Amino acid sequence: MERRLFLKGAALTGAATTLAAPAIAQSRTDMVIVSTWPRDFPGLGTSAQRLAARITELTEGRITTQYFAAGERVGAFDSFDEVASGNAQAYIGADYYWKGKHPGWAAFTAVPFGLTYTEIDAWIKFAGGQELWDELAGEFGLKNFACGNTGVQMGGWFNKEINSPDDIKGLKMRIPGLGGDVIAKLGGSPVSLPGGQIYENLVSGAVDATEWVGPWNDYFLKFYEAAKYYYWPGMHEPGSQLALGMNASWWGSLSKNDQNILEAACNEENARQMAETNANNGTYLTKLIKENGVELREFNDDVYEAFGEAATAVIEEAREHSDLSKRIMDSVLAARQDIGGWMAISDAAYVQKRNAVIGI
Amino acid sequence: MERRLFLKGAALTGAATTLAAPAIAQSRTDMVIVSTWPRDFPGLGTSAQRLAARITELTEGRITTQYFAAGERVGAFDSFDEVASGNAQAYIGADYYWKGKHPGWAAFTAVPFGLTYTEIDAWIKFAGGQELWDELAGEFGLKNFACGNTGVQMGGWFNKEINSPDDIKGLKMRIPGLGGDVIAKLGGSPVSLPGGQIYENLVSGAVDATEWVGPWNDYFLKFYEAAKYYYWPGMHEPGSQLALGMNASWWGSLSKNDQNILEAACNEENARQMAETNANNGTYLTKLIKENGVELREFNDDVYEAFGEAATAVIEEAREHSDLSKRIMDSVLAARQDIGGWMAISDAAYVQKRNAVIGI
Repeated sequence: MERRLFLKGAALTGAATTLAAPAIAQSRTDMVIVSTWPRDFPGLGTSAQRLAARITELTEGRITTQYFAAGERVGAFDSFDEVASGNAQAYIGADYYWKGKHPGWAAFTAVPFGLTYTEIDAWIKFAGGQELWDELAGEFGLKNFACGNTGVQMGGWFNKEINSPDDIKGLKMRIPGLGGDVIAKLGGSPVSLPGGQIYENLVSGAVDATEWVGPWNDYFLKFYEAAKYYYWPGMHEPGSQLALGMNASWWGSLSKNDQNILEAACNEENARQMAETNANNGTYLTKLIKENGVELREFNDDVYEAFGEAATAVIEEAREHSDLSKRIMDSVLAARQDIGGWMAISDAAYVQKRNAVIGI
Repeated sequence: MERRLFLKGAALTGAATTLAAPAIAQSRTDMVIVSTWPRDFPGLGTSAQRLAARITELTEGRITTQYFAAGERVGAFDSFDEVASGNAQAYIGADYYWKGKHPGWAAFTAVPFGLTYTEIDAWIKFAGGQELWDELAGEFGLKNFACGNTGVQMGGWFNKEINSPDDIKGLKMRIPGLGGDVIAKLGGSPVSLPGGQIYENLVSGAVDATEWVGPWNDYFLKFYEAAKYYYWPGMHEPGSQLALGMNASWWGSLSKNDQNILEAACNEENARQMAETNANNGTYLTKLIKENGVELREFNDDVYEAFGEAATAVIEEAREHSDLSKRIMDSVLAARQDIGGWMAISDAAYVQKRNAVIGI
């Protein structure tokens, strides 16, 4: 694969030299994309691969992408360094995986008790989110765009019922990002594992519980073989936004037109993945219940209040890290108040009233 | 501007003739866009203008758009015929304005008791919606893409309280599409007026009530001067999707690459307008209440149940029009059941629980 890449690049360079030199530098570039998702994984993987193909298609190959799934070039959690160092041009992944480098990264995927898909998209595009993301990414030599969202996550897979906050105590749960910190506040032990390693850890008992995404994405990881209670709604990732993180120097070398097309491709896939996920979740939830014996459970008010208190403390700790963290978290909280207040009398109110009347 | 464009085009053509000739015929086209929205109107108008500019930008002028707001070339409601006849290449508007030509058009903007933004986007892209839209548009020589959404609409502006279904009787209300038919079922008199004519009719008393969009869009039409009760949530347009409707022959004449870029531009603006609207609605709702003395009112359960019954009857009547209408409405209802059921345990449930815990 590496060798073919080299030969292809050489051939293109050879052809281009028959035209004027300055134009060539902008006219054609390779874009190696490393990803945190397994190849062909329904939802996360297929969306990332679709975006990679779309960039080549929309630019007619001026930007020729080469996509490497998790482990094909570097491990999932090495994607960030691969791009920041310039070894690859971009990653596709969830930015909360980098919260150890700076807690601000978490806000651009998901904050516990934070924003849903429609809320985070409004925040990023029209309430200061992208500007803060640019500032944070700039500190690491990156330029990031939203390029996917998996919506409100399910609360997770448990092999016992969670009837009170005490039931979280001592629980070993796979849950990354700040959501994991919430579980720790309640006495649990959060673990961060890439998607491809969760199943074996759940089956072996190395973890007691896990969250992943939602019915469609979760179905293919077969968690129902090891945990039968499937809780809703998740508090930890209410609208997980995925990112195309690009090496900033490479981004700066692109023509304005190619930058615009890249941005449009990301904006398109951001909504497309959300649409695909919502279109599939109902169907796969039914399969999980009817074919796999999964039992749905709703988190009760006691548990949710405990989650809320812990989330507030976790966000406060992230705020204290630095001036930039403070500004990022304050911006998320302002968006939650303003846009979340509007949601209470629009989308959330309408769905609740409609479903009550027509009996869904 | 026109002259400079022409000269630029000529220069490109000259350069290109040293390569293969057939590529040139596809390389440059004008795209006249007529719109159903007033010029510079915040939200609807500015989104349409942004999309027109973006198409020229992303194609580097291979498709050069010329945008005409409502009344600048043809009246708002003449946009459809202008494009179907080939006088213009595209319109931007709300397809339910054409329900007199075929009731199926309503489904691609909004159906009463139908789909929210996230639900309709899932339906269009991954649950059969676009295919049905293509079939309907094809009958009129059009090709349509979603290019905007204004979310769950407010229930409207009233100068008296609506405490029971009887309060709808005799009400003259500006409300287009199938939502208007719901009001008629309850004994009201629906009127369809373009945005630019509503205010004068409301002030003069020619209509007693009106809906338009939501706090941000409504603020600029000053309805609060003539009606102080502002009801939520609207049942008539739970996620109004806007459309770029193109002349199908013109669309067919574009290169595959330009078609792809046009599609991406529409997908991008579809989410962007929704994000902008959600980012602004909270702020403008506060202004309306604090600065303009508007009083918020929630439709009660009796009224909502009456709306629901009437909506079911209206959808049934639309179904009976033709085989295509039946298939369109059945597809909407299936998406509502499947995706709407998922929303009940995800977005709607989460926002309600989160807001309760943190006191929004």
